[in-house]
Amino acid sequence: MQLLRDRWDGADSLLCVGLDPDVARLPAVVGSGPGAFLEFCKAIVDATADLVCAFKPQVAYFAAQGRETELADLIHYIRMRHPAVPVILDAKRGDIGDTARMYACEAFERYGADAVTVNPYLGRESVEPFLAWPDRGVVVLCRTSNPDSGWLQNYPSGSPVYLRVAQAAREWNGRGNVMVVAGATYPDDLRQIRAAIGEMPILVPGIGAQGGELAAVLANGQDGRGRGLVINASRAILYAGSGSDYAAEARTVALALRDEIRALVS
Amino acid sequence: MQLLRDRWDGADSLLCVGLDPDVARLPAVVGSGPGAFLEFCKAIVDATADLVCAFKPQVAYFAAQGRETELADLIHYIRMRHPAVPVILDAKRGDIGDTARMYACEAFERYGADAVTVNPYLGRESVEPFLAWPDRGVVVLCRTSNPDSGWLQNYPSGSPVYLRVAQAAREWNGRGNVMVVAGATYPDDLRQIRAAIGEMPILVPGIGAQGGELAAVLANGQDGRGRGLVINASRAILYAGSGSDYAAEARTVALALRDEIRALVS
Repeated sequence: MQLLRDRWDGADSLLCVGLDPDVARLPAVVGSGPGAFLEFCKAIVDATADLVCAFKPQVAYFAAQGRETELADLIHYIRMRHPAVPVILDAKRGDIGDTARMYACEAFERYGADAVTVNPYLGRESVEPFLAWPDRGVVVLCRTSNPDSGWLQNYPSGSPVYLRVAQAAREWNGRGNVMVVAGATYPDDLRQIRAAIGEMPILVPGIGAQGGELAAVLANGQDGRGRGLVINASRAILYAGSGSDYAAEARTVALALRDEIRALVS
Repeated sequence: MQLLRDRWDGADSLLCVGLDPDVARLPAVVGSGPGAFLEFCKAIVDATADLVCAFKPQVAYFAAQGRETELADLIHYIRMRHPAVPVILDAKRGDIGDTARMYACEAFERYGADAVTVNPYLGRESVEPFLAWPDRGVVVLCRTSNPDSGWLQNYPSGSPVYLRVAQAAREWNGRGNVMVVAGATYPDDLRQIRAAIGEMPILVPGIGAQGGELAAVLANGQDGRGRGLVINASRAILYAGSGSDYAAEARTVALALRDEIRALVS
C-alpha cells in the first residue's frame, strides 16, 4: 500500500495497465512462439511504466497457454526495471485453509506479486491466508464491472451483498493491506463503496471497452486527497496498434488516458 | 455427467478422492524433488481407482510449487489408465468474458479435466464460458463447508445467497452439464439445495477432518436413485500412512469410507 501511495504521488497517475496477452491478438511482429508473451508484455511495460501507478497481469491468459514461467519472468522484470510500480496479480483466487495458503504462496512467493485479487464468496477464511502477508496487498472483489454481476452482488436490494463485502473489507484491513474492486460501470455503487471503506484504495475495472464513464468514477471514487483509485485499462492500451510500433501506440493511448484522468481529479 | 452416472453404477461408489499433494506432508519415500507430486498422486490413484466415482486434483497445491506440468501429466495418466473415472479439477475459477474463456481453456484443454469447480460471485457471465463446453462438467460453488462461509452464503436469512445460487445453477443446467458444491458440515442447507436442484449431482466436501456427518449427508443429499453425490475425502486418505506402504494405507481408508457410505445409501 505504501508503494502504491508513493507511486500515486511520484507519477501523479491513477492509471493501471492490465497485462492480458491474448495469443490471438498479439502483433504479428511478436509471433506466438515461446517467449512471445514475455516479449510483448515487456515492451508494453517499458513503454508505459512512467505513466502508471500499477501493472495488473491477468494469470488466466498465461495459464491457458501453459506460460507460467513467462508470467514469473514478467513480474520479476517489472520489479527489477521499474521497482516503484506495484504489481497486482489478477487471479481472483477463492479457497480456504491450506489451499488458500497455497494460492497466497503462488501469488506472493512464486510470482513475487505485490498484491493479488481474491474472491470473497467463501468468507473471511478465504481472505485471511492472504492478509497474513503484511507486506503484500489483498484486493477483494466487491462490485464487479460486468452486466450480470448485480444478480448476486446487488442482492438483496437495500442491503446488498457488495456492501456487506465492502464493510467486511474494512474490518479485514487491520494490517492496512486491503483494497477492493468496484467497476466503473456502476458509479452509484462505487460511491456507496467509497463511503463504506473510508480511504482504502479501490481497483476500478470497466472503463473503455466496458463502457464506464471516467468522470463519474473520479467524482464518486477518489479519496480526500484526489487519489485512492487504481483505474485499469487493458485491451484499449495493449492492442492500440498491431504493427511493429505497437508499444509506441500503446504509450500514446496510455498517455492520453492518464491525462484524461488527471484532468478529472478534484 | 454421463461418465459420472456410469461410474456411480459401475463402481457402486459415491466416494471421490481429492488429490492435494502438500510438499510438507509427502511420505519420505517419495521425496520432494521434481516428479514427486506425480509419483505420489499416481500411486494413490492406482491404489484407489476401483473404489471411487471421481478424482479431484486441487490446482493450488501444484501451482504454489510451479508443478503445472505434473498436474497435466497426472490428469492425462488418470484418463489413460482409468478412463471410467471422471476428473474434477478443483480450481474455483471466477472471472468474465475472455478471461473466463481462458480459464475454461486451462481446465478443459490444457489439463484435459472432465469438470472444473467455479465461483458464482460474478454471475452467469462467469459460468457461461465453461457451460459452453457441452461435454464437460461445471461445478458451481453453492454452500461451502468452512465455518465462516455463512457470512455471505447464508445472507440474508430466509432467502439466502446459497439458495439463489442453487436455483440459478438449475437454470444454467440447460445442457445437463452442471453440478453444485454443498458442504457436509451444513446438512440442513444440503437438504434445501437438493430440493432446489432436483436430480443434479452434488459435490460434497467437508467430511472427516472438517467434521461433517456422513449419515446426514446421505439422508439429505442423495437423489431418488440413491446416487447424486460425489463425497470428497482428501487428507484422511492421502496421508493415511507415511511409510513406504502409504498407497496401501490410503486404499484401506478409502475402502472403509466407500463401504461406510454404501451402507448409508437408502
